[in-house]
Amino acid sequence: MTRPVISITTDFGTGDYDAGVLTGVILSIAPEARISILTHDVTPFNILEGAVILSRCTPYFPENSVHVAVVDPGVGTQRRGLAARLGRQTFVGPDNGLCTLMVEAAHAADLPVEFYALEDPQYWLSNVTHIFHGRDIFAPVAAHIAAGVPLRAFGQPVVDPILLQLPVPSRTTNGWRGTIIHVDHFGNLTSNLTAGQLEGRSNFAIQILGSTIPNLTHTYGAAQSGSLICLLDDSDCLEIAVSQGNAEKRLKAGVGTEFDLVFQE
Amino acid sequence: MTRPVISITTDFGTGDYDAGVLTGVILSIAPEARISILTHDVTPFNILEGAVILSRCTPYFPENSVHVAVVDPGVGTQRRGLAARLGRQTFVGPDNGLCTLMVEAAHAADLPVEFYALEDPQYWLSNVTHIFHGRDIFAPVAAHIAAGVPLRAFGQPVVDPILLQLPVPSRTTNGWRGTIIHVDHFGNLTSNLTAGQLEGRSNFAIQILGSTIPNLTHTYGAAQSGSLICLLDDSDCLEIAVSQGNAEKRLKAGVGTEFDLVFQE
Amino acid sequence: MTRPVISITTDFGTGDYDAGVLTGVILSIAPEARISILTHDVTPFNILEGAVILSRCTPYFPENSVHVAVVDPGVGTQRRGLAARLGRQTFVGPDNGLCTLMVEAAHAADLPVEFYALEDPQYWLSNVTHIFHGRDIFAPVAAHIAAGVPLRAFGQPVVDPILLQLPVPSRTTNGWRGTIIHVDHFGNLTSNLTAGQLEGRSNFAIQILGSTIPNLTHTYGAAQSGSLICLLDDSDCLEIAVSQGNAEKRLKAGVGTEFDLVFQE
Repeated sequence: MTRPVISITTDFGTGDYDAGVLTGVILSIAPEARISILTHDVTPFNILEGAVILSRCTPYFPENSVHVAVVDPGVGTQRRGLAARLGRQTFVGPDNGLCTLMVEAAHAADLPVEFYALEDPQYWLSNVTHIFHGRDIFAPVAAHIAAGVPLRAFGQPVVDPILLQLPVPSRTTNGWRGTIIHVDHFGNLTSNLTAGQLEGRSNFAIQILGSTIPNLTHTYGAAQSGSLICLLDDSDCLEIAVSQGNAEKRLKAGVGTEFDLVFQE
Repeated sequence: MTRPVISITTDFGTGDYDAGVLTGVILSIAPEARISILTHDVTPFNILEGAVILSRCTPYFPENSVHVAVVDPGVGTQRRGLAARLGRQTFVGPDNGLCTLMVEAAHAADLPVEFYALEDPQYWLSNVTHIFHGRDIFAPVAAHIAAGVPLRAFGQPVVDPILLQLPVPSRTTNGWRGTIIHVDHFGNLTSNLTAGQLEGRSNFAIQILGSTIPNLTHTYGAAQSGSLICLLDDSDCLEIAVSQGNAEKRLKAGVGTEFDLVFQE
Repeated sequence: MTRPVISITTDFGTGDYDAGVLTGVILSIAPEARISILTHDVTPFNILEGAVILSRCTPYFPENSVHVAVVDPGVGTQRRGLAARLGRQTFVGPDNGLCTLMVEAAHAADLPVEFYALEDPQYWLSNVTHIFHGRDIFAPVAAHIAAGVPLRAFGQPVVDPILLQLPVPSRTTNGWRGTIIHVDHFGNLTSNLTAGQLEGRSNFAIQILGSTIPNLTHTYGAAQSGSLICLLDDSDCLEIAVSQGNAEKRLKAGVGTEFDLVFQE
């Protein structure tokens, strides 16, 4: 039998003990698990950023991988923990919207979506703290799933999981008004406009924070170094970038920055 | 047979070759080892920080895991290398106090503690440099342990390992004087006061660097965002934090900062 | 059969989805692969730095390991992708010089060197973007190699791979003129002078950016803390360092900085 895969996504950073301890917990419960770190460097408390990272990575993982994610400003309050079947993948983490984009993708592909509350302490560490549910609850539950425990064993079905309300592009008279929803390592700006909304057209201009980008570029390498460009990113979202440079710094833009796309005649 | 686990803790950072090369060395000697990175981001040369990270992670690992740790300002001098049986876990690294808190935990649990010097070069790489014992000695020894070599094979027993002298809390007329011993990724300040010393009381105030914290908070999420709080951390140590903020920056505190805990009537 | 090892080297950073997605792609194609992250923190677009890291790590990996490396400013242009047999190791990545030092090492050891272009899309993801060949081409090819596909299956042999032209030390009347080719995490400066060029001598002085280092030091720990020293590094290259300090910052030096080594009478 193929050994199960567990991915880990957190905002713990890599400079302390909290990242490493999760792997110890998992290997103690599911010795055969293969662990893959997606990132420990989500911006602290940034649930949307965690949701984007999960949605970009999880489709590429083997079927039945378990993705434990801990960006959890509400730890220790009444917020629930969740285990969720989202299409071909499984999510474990806090009920705070982290899995929103995985849910949307499963719905869009007409795949099953099921949520269960984490309620049965027999699947947790014996000593649960109020401040480290990643170690005490989420990692153990992920390991038990990898070891074969079905999701319904953890608790009652949940019908009202918390989902993020993401900004939706709006149609304007001659194009779209979009919003930056993510900034990557290179300072590239990911928007909520997708290839479908461009109607196959590349003759449009982008107006963002006083700068204008005159048309769609095919790829980073095709543009002059240092030029401001827009292109379709690796997930078919419209992205604003600086060739071999940093668009976030150049434009002083960030998540939430709005821009206009204007179709040309 | 379950495959052995080797964890790695260093101050090498992740931007260069020295972190990655350790995994190559280990997999060349112990192909079946499962490698878990605790962190490569210990503050350079900060042995105490490495010791704290090891003590917080290792109890959660499977029995008989091997923990190789390299925070090693004395590399190339006469400092010894050690392989140590510390309760249910094994440590490999320099003899400079890195394993201090693992030793204390094993003693506290009345578990075996044994140290051996790394003396037999047959378990090292064939070409040992004076400046990279992590690659040349510690990683190979850890891999040989994972592959089944007993600790006594590496060299003579050691009875006088170097252990850090950590600050001990002192009783005052109406409470305790404690010391910050660790700062985590979020800027939370870990102290050397533990739950036992609080006698189950939560009616006390903390005075630190001119600020007063009026009582014990249950959890981060229960406090108003931005407020200065104290709570018991995930290892039952008293911690000073800012809810959804950074106590290190707010207080300009760090490792070594002292504070007073004053019990209220 | 021993499970194949795949190492990963990129300039993606660890704060986003692009690092994690590679492991998902690999595990989907080669479930038995053992994945080792060399680094995701190559300075963005710095091909030389990636080449140095590969050359320092790969000799320590098990024979037949596959090393996928993505520092790829030319992604989406006409630059080729390569799979290369370089001595006992295999390289997969862009044809931009990233494998230069692995090639030199294989030539120096008189081991086989073979390059193949990545041309056959049956070994790529079904939807190849213009901007993320790490995910769409290089990771899948590395996984197929680990799963047993021979290099010649991917495309035609390549006889003119792009190789970096590295600075070569020049002989002066009383010593050598060398160049810094790498700066490590601690700010240590690696030069292109090697042990062989020192002729076994340690009675020489280094003159660099107005500072003089009077002789060769055996090891970091033997020097006074804070002193500027030179020594042979873990790969027998001359290195300039500050004991328990940072030579890059002290000297304001970097890759490309030249210096003189003057043999004493």
